[in-house]
Amino acid sequence: MPYRGYEDQNCSIARTLAIVGERWTLLVLREVLLGRRRFRDIQRQTGVAPNILSDRLETLVEHGVLKRRGQDYVPTRKGLDLQPVLLTLMAWGDRYVSPHGPPRVAIHTACGHDAQAHLVCSHCGEPIDSQVTEIRAGPGADAKRRPAARRRSPSGAG
Amino acid sequence: MPYRGYEDQNCSIARTLAIVGERWTLLVLREVLLGRRRFRDIQRQTGVAPNILSDRLETLVEHGVLKRRGQDYVPTRKGLDLQPVLLTLMAWGDRYVSPHGPPRVAIHTACGHDAQAHLVCSHCGEPIDSQVTEIRAGPGADAKRRPAARRRSPSGAG
Repeated sequence: MPYRGYEDQNCSIARTLAIVGERWTLLVLREVLLGRRRFRDIQRQTGVAPNILSDRLETLVEHGVLKRRGQDYVPTRKGLDLQPVLLTLMAWGDRYVSPHGPPRVAIHTACGHDAQAHLVCSHCGEPIDSQVTEIRAGPGADAKRRPAARRRSPSGAG
Repeated sequence: MPYRGYEDQNCSIARTLAIVGERWTLLVLREVLLGRRRFRDIQRQTGVAPNILSDRLETLVEHGVLKRRGQDYVPTRKGLDLQPVLLTLMAWGDRYVSPHGPPRVAIHTACGHDAQAHLVCSHCGEPIDSQVTEIRAGPGADAKRRPAARRRSPSGAG
């Protein structure tokens, strides 16, 4: 595992990055979610070296993010569920590092409009903003991390 | 730039990863957004080697994601705006790689409830799902990428 140390952390961010955080992996996933399924097409679009691409695809298949279907690499539900990660990376890049405007625009096919993905609270539906979010220890926290992660007493709400 | 090839891509995901996609960077950012501001504290929490931490912090300061305030590393607006990336990574990890339940829970302080961040369409407010999103070329697309990125004709809506 190249991300040694990551997967030992009791942290969902670290554990996710242990699977998708290696160099090129998220760009490979970008291509698959854009509909490119063949090794050669993914390789051409990303410019990644073939040996690295092989390794990244193998890791994604191993973790059930992609599956092989003949010569195609197809996203699983688990893989499709990584789209929010790509959309939030894209939104930040559109805002801060796209001097000529967004290179790509997401269309919400359900409503047919160009759409920026916004984060909202699953409880009240209002926008999530970094300044109105706190983090507390969850059910999977271990004793060692719990005090550091907790900033207010747990509400007990799930 | 260690992510050679990334920043040449006319893609907001690649450009964002050119800044935050290196190994450890997002975990360093996690610590800063959790409120840890000192080199030593960040180092202890992440377990990253000091020389790598120095490099990552320097890159984040250089790109205006963090700023120095005395001995502290403080997130800028640009840095706070990366929280959605961390929250979507966390949500995926909570769902797929947290056998004992989420190690951390986000609290939406505006409503006081434990909240999972959900992605919604900025136009209609309905949930964004990978199966109801398409991607088209945006204003910043270059001619070469435009046909590949476009899957339906642009609507002209902003």
